[in-house]
Amino acid sequence: MQPRTVAFRVNLSALDLFPIDLWTRTTAQQWRRASASLLLGGEPFGYLPLRTLLSSYLRTSRSVVCDPEQILITSGIQEALDLSTRILVDAGDRVLMEDPGYQIAYAGFKAAGARIVPLSIDDEGAVPPIKTGLRARLMYITPGHQFPTGATMSFRRRTQILRYARREGTCIFEDDYDSEFRFEGSPLPALQSLDPKAQVIFAGSFNKTLFPSLRMGYMVVPPELVGAFRMCKSIHSRHHPWGDQAVLHAFIDEGHYVRHLRKMRKVYSDRLQLLADEVQKHLGGALELSPVEAGMQTVGWLRTAQSADEIAALALEENVDVIPLSRYCYKRQVPPGFQIGFGAVDGKSIARGVQILAQMIS
Amino acid sequence: MQPRTVAFRVNLSALDLFPIDLWTRTTAQQWRRASASLLLGGEPFGYLPLRTLLSSYLRTSRSVVCDPEQILITSGIQEALDLSTRILVDAGDRVLMEDPGYQIAYAGFKAAGARIVPLSIDDEGAVPPIKTGLRARLMYITPGHQFPTGATMSFRRRTQILRYARREGTCIFEDDYDSEFRFEGSPLPALQSLDPKAQVIFAGSFNKTLFPSLRMGYMVVPPELVGAFRMCKSIHSRHHPWGDQAVLHAFIDEGHYVRHLRKMRKVYSDRLQLLADEVQKHLGGALELSPVEAGMQTVGWLRTAQSADEIAALALEENVDVIPLSRYCYKRQVPPGFQIGFGAVDGKSIARGVQILAQMIS
Repeated sequence: MQPRTVAFRVNLSALDLFPIDLWTRTTAQQWRRASASLLLGGEPFGYLPLRTLLSSYLRTSRSVVCDPEQILITSGIQEALDLSTRILVDAGDRVLMEDPGYQIAYAGFKAAGARIVPLSIDDEGAVPPIKTGLRARLMYITPGHQFPTGATMSFRRRTQILRYARREGTCIFEDDYDSEFRFEGSPLPALQSLDPKAQVIFAGSFNKTLFPSLRMGYMVVPPELVGAFRMCKSIHSRHHPWGDQAVLHAFIDEGHYVRHLRKMRKVYSDRLQLLADEVQKHLGGALELSPVEAGMQTVGWLRTAQSADEIAALALEENVDVIPLSRYCYKRQVPPGFQIGFGAVDGKSIARGVQILAQMIS
Repeated sequence: MQPRTVAFRVNLSALDLFPIDLWTRTTAQQWRRASASLLLGGEPFGYLPLRTLLSSYLRTSRSVVCDPEQILITSGIQEALDLSTRILVDAGDRVLMEDPGYQIAYAGFKAAGARIVPLSIDDEGAVPPIKTGLRARLMYITPGHQFPTGATMSFRRRTQILRYARREGTCIFEDDYDSEFRFEGSPLPALQSLDPKAQVIFAGSFNKTLFPSLRMGYMVVPPELVGAFRMCKSIHSRHHPWGDQAVLHAFIDEGHYVRHLRKMRKVYSDRLQLLADEVQKHLGGALELSPVEAGMQTVGWLRTAQSADEIAALALEENVDVIPLSRYCYKRQVPPGFQIGFGAVDGKSIARGVQILAQMIS
């Protein structure tokens, strides 16, 4: 069921363009070839052929340096965050996170009793605290494509963040949630790859690149934490379902995954361009889009004196779904704006959605 | 890969008898019919058609009274326990659990900082504490087939347990892990069904009845806790993979599940009988089997002056895997004995395994 809204749902890929026939064929093949070992399962970190494939894929595409032994198959970034929080964060510990930032990460840290210290965001991404001695256990950041503002963290900022984390003994959780959809140029190297002395957990997801109900992602665990993660995963859910991992392995191994990414990168890039054109035509001067370099969503910054929350509420009555940034803010005030998804929105709906917004913004 | 041991691995079903062709066909069919809604997923509690089917199945087979709204699809009993612990148990809270008991439940409670109060086991199952005022948050029990001793909780004991839990404000976690494999007669009604005023979480698993790498189970959540479980599941892993749930739904709906259970019940019953005959023949007087009524494992009680740990260690050198009960004991001493699995062990291996044990026990 596609959402009934006209436009701009965030964090959703274009499901109608997913090659479900290829996925179905791969699934049937894997089960036809299944042996008793597929039924038995095993290692808490997951299916070794998938982890081996991912370790070389991540090396090539994201400069991530890791052995298959460090890769844990999760149900997505949420589970990666959950395991990390359980292992690293005790009640009362400090956690640094972006503000505005991913509200589900915030909820997880709160549930663990963490004291959350907000990091402000500028054009170069999250800004490390000036204050030293916070000794936070964890720093949650989205350097590839800041959620929700869309900023890509500069190389200079990456080294500042790493230096800060190393000095403070803070483990970095690098949420790489949709770097696969980068529109041009090579992505900057992952923080995980830049400083072997810093403790960085790197996490990504197939729920955005393939389809959300798949519930599959991965995390790269620093070698010294592998034992603790294995124990934690083993006690709480044993391991991820094995059959799904075998199917995903074959889907990547046969080249379908990279072909799908390539196709979707073009689709999303075209949709973003169309969105920019329509905004320029109907809302020029009143709404300014963030210059995002990747992903399925951007931010529209209001240049009028209106309230982003009120506009979002009015738009929703017309079935246009934009999320005011205030929903992602914990302690800071940010300039008025809202998140606009374009991944799952076709051209006609983008045009229609912008026209509806234009009736409200002036 | 079947285990290389000759015999007696516990907690494992006969994978070579699983109808993998039917599973493969059902999987392929489900994906061929898949719509965008299957890719989208949704509700944290899981795929509604599966939950609806389970609610009527549990009513018929286990007398469990529930709406589909109360059924949460998990990756197995471990996840059900984990969610329950997160929601109900704070560090320092008391948790009652069977001793000897399921070591993974113990590890999870320990990790949550619970104070574990052991329940002793007799022929009627777990014994409620004499002491009142413990006000434990949770009581973990396996009434259908006590793990590891195999005792089935009597009706009288069920009502005692419920009365105790109600008076103390303790939530019962009823782990129904392999009641599906009951050899004769109707099972006693689940505790969940006996007292509408007691707070009972009922949990079961398909990892034992179908295959372990499936990672799928369910829990029945009391109505007043549904909101808390939805929030918790949603934050930490969103929901179980959707495709697997659709496949399992079809597998049950088309009657394959019940047919498989019927077949396996006969297989396991025959294997248990053979085990009993072989033990009688080669170990009569030295080893006494628990009279289990269900499942894939039993306990052999040593009637010699030997140590169960030593015998288990010697047996392992001959590739015979039996688990001394001491491994499941936390505070209590139990009479010497070990757990013997027969589910995944064919007739020839049962005979061979008993002969090897007979060389060590006298």
